[in-house]
Amino acid sequence: MYAVIMAGGTGTRFWPRSREEKPKQFLSILDSKTLIQMTIERLTPLIDKKHIFLVMNPQQQTQLLAQLPDFIPEQIILEPFGKNTAPCIGLAAIHLQVLHPDSVMVVLPSDHIIRDVKTFHQALQIGEEMAIKSDAMITIGITPNRPATGYGYIQHSEKALHSDGISVYKVKTFAEKPIFETAKLFLKSGDFLWNSGIFIWKTATILREIRSHLPELYIGLEKLQKTIGKVNYPKQLERFYRQIRSISIDYGVMEDAQNVYVIKCDLGWNDVGSWDEVYKLSEKDKNGNAIIGNGMIVDGEDNLIYSKDDLVAVLGVKDMVVVKSENAILVCPRERAQDVKDLVDMLKRKNMNEYL
Amino acid sequence: MYAVIMAGGTGTRFWPRSREEKPKQFLSILDSKTLIQMTIERLTPLIDKKHIFLVMNPQQQTQLLAQLPDFIPEQIILEPFGKNTAPCIGLAAIHLQVLHPDSVMVVLPSDHIIRDVKTFHQALQIGEEMAIKSDAMITIGITPNRPATGYGYIQHSEKALHSDGISVYKVKTFAEKPIFETAKLFLKSGDFLWNSGIFIWKTATILREIRSHLPELYIGLEKLQKTIGKVNYPKQLERFYRQIRSISIDYGVMEDAQNVYVIKCDLGWNDVGSWDEVYKLSEKDKNGNAIIGNGMIVDGEDNLIYSKDDLVAVLGVKDMVVVKSENAILVCPRERAQDVKDLVDMLKRKNMNEYL
Repeated sequence: MYAVIMAGGTGTRFWPRSREEKPKQFLSILDSKTLIQMTIERLTPLIDKKHIFLVMNPQQQTQLLAQLPDFIPEQIILEPFGKNTAPCIGLAAIHLQVLHPDSVMVVLPSDHIIRDVKTFHQALQIGEEMAIKSDAMITIGITPNRPATGYGYIQHSEKALHSDGISVYKVKTFAEKPIFETAKLFLKSGDFLWNSGIFIWKTATILREIRSHLPELYIGLEKLQKTIGKVNYPKQLERFYRQIRSISIDYGVMEDAQNVYVIKCDLGWNDVGSWDEVYKLSEKDKNGNAIIGNGMIVDGEDNLIYSKDDLVAVLGVKDMVVVKSENAILVCPRERAQDVKDLVDMLKRKNMNEYL
Repeated sequence: MYAVIMAGGTGTRFWPRSREEKPKQFLSILDSKTLIQMTIERLTPLIDKKHIFLVMNPQQQTQLLAQLPDFIPEQIILEPFGKNTAPCIGLAAIHLQVLHPDSVMVVLPSDHIIRDVKTFHQALQIGEEMAIKSDAMITIGITPNRPATGYGYIQHSEKALHSDGISVYKVKTFAEKPIFETAKLFLKSGDFLWNSGIFIWKTATILREIRSHLPELYIGLEKLQKTIGKVNYPKQLERFYRQIRSISIDYGVMEDAQNVYVIKCDLGWNDVGSWDEVYKLSEKDKNGNAIIGNGMIVDGEDNLIYSKDDLVAVLGVKDMVVVKSENAILVCPRERAQDVKDLVDMLKRKNMNEYL
């Protein structure tokens, strides 16, 4: 089993802590370890370190090697720029196929938290077995506990296979991030799960599926594969990435494919998708305040303060996020934390590069 | 006419901009000039610069002379520590009496804003005249335009003298900062004015009144006066300040005195008593936001941002104050801005001196 960690994200939802040069996966927000370090640690008991590949952009490489000095450049697959998950997964697949045609791939994000590592390993093993036995495409679905609007959902069919308390269902459909009313219906229905973005399949299987659902992408990949290890690979890669369409694997492949399964489990999973998620994952005082770093709250409840240097003093405020990082300060209500990207967009429009 | 500016305040309501070493009167919050510079500029057309005296504590002297290089040390009257306004005014009076027994004193705070300087000068001249003619104690009362709870009030009688559109009334009573319900009644009654803290009287008059209402203070002052210009003055001053009771001139003298008048006028006066007042005095954009320095607001209304260096980015927030200054950040609702002193108190309790 090989792991492919998609680490190319340039998350903006943790601004001002995350910056263009320092996306979320390279940050240690909740732990002394960074999210990408934690992601790899979580895999190594099950997957040989040499079998873990990272897909990322060249600008991030130095930073990655600083955080993961064990990694050798051969384990890093560079993308010239992001084109969503389908090209990223296709690129990793053609490399793995060259190394090991019969490999099973686990594709996973670099910046999520999974608390129940035992169940996670169990799920990966069930997935590997199914991927080999029945040529299936397997995804991990998280039992939702609230009508979250920040996640994609997977609807499963009624029939399930059980294994050690973990249920495996056939997938009916993938759903984009819903509005709140829809999310409530999803939760009530009982057959919708959160899409963790973790996939398990044979390398051969995903390439076959890309061929049938995204033939253009497949043709480009096939052509590129022939140049792997050769001098013209970087140039070919660049050209390929310029041409291909940006599309997600869910929408481009999974949605239309047969033989797609979901492993339903409760992993203590969190995508740490916003400052509000950081709040939810943090320890709180008796007034529900979470203070990470240098903060002080008088007469306030359920706030998140994050500052590694200057003192953040909050008075008479409820449900607020206040973050100081480097040369910027963010103030927004917890329920608006998902919209921090709007601020970052405005900084971009105004060319305020010193804050990006 | 001599001016006595009380500049010893160590305001905490502008934290984190104001610090122990940098109280409000030495800050330029709304203008390129500091409040004390503006206070003096406002007086000089009417009062000879050499006749302007400042009462302050020794720690502030260097700072003052940096901002007002024209001032000579003889114009600075030092208080070893603050004991409220009665001792401060008494101390200034014994000095003025030595210099000029027939002088008229205008006592005024160092950190207020007055927009209508012409009316202000007119009021001072009316006051001077009354002080000389009828041995009166005159105060300036501001026509209130809202039920403010942050100011003291002066209730006047019905009978008025008029002079050039400015009315002068006999004072009925001085009232402390009221609660909101009381402030509404004050406003409705029509005979309550805001107490500007500006007083006009003959030096001889105020000393006589101190003698009758605060005899202990008077005895100390009399004793101290004999040492002015002598080598034992500083020691005597220190001893005197240790012993005397901390009391305001309003409560200690004015409240019980006869012959107290109030000049009612509308000076465009503001005591700039909190960040909320700064908001009210600042220019706003079409969403009601006031940004002083480096700020950006997305989807927010009626906020105040103040930062001279780092970017303060605010998203989805209404009626909030966000201030970055030096090593600290303040976040509080505008309506709680008066309670910033509670934060400062907590910093003191916790000995967090680097933020004080």
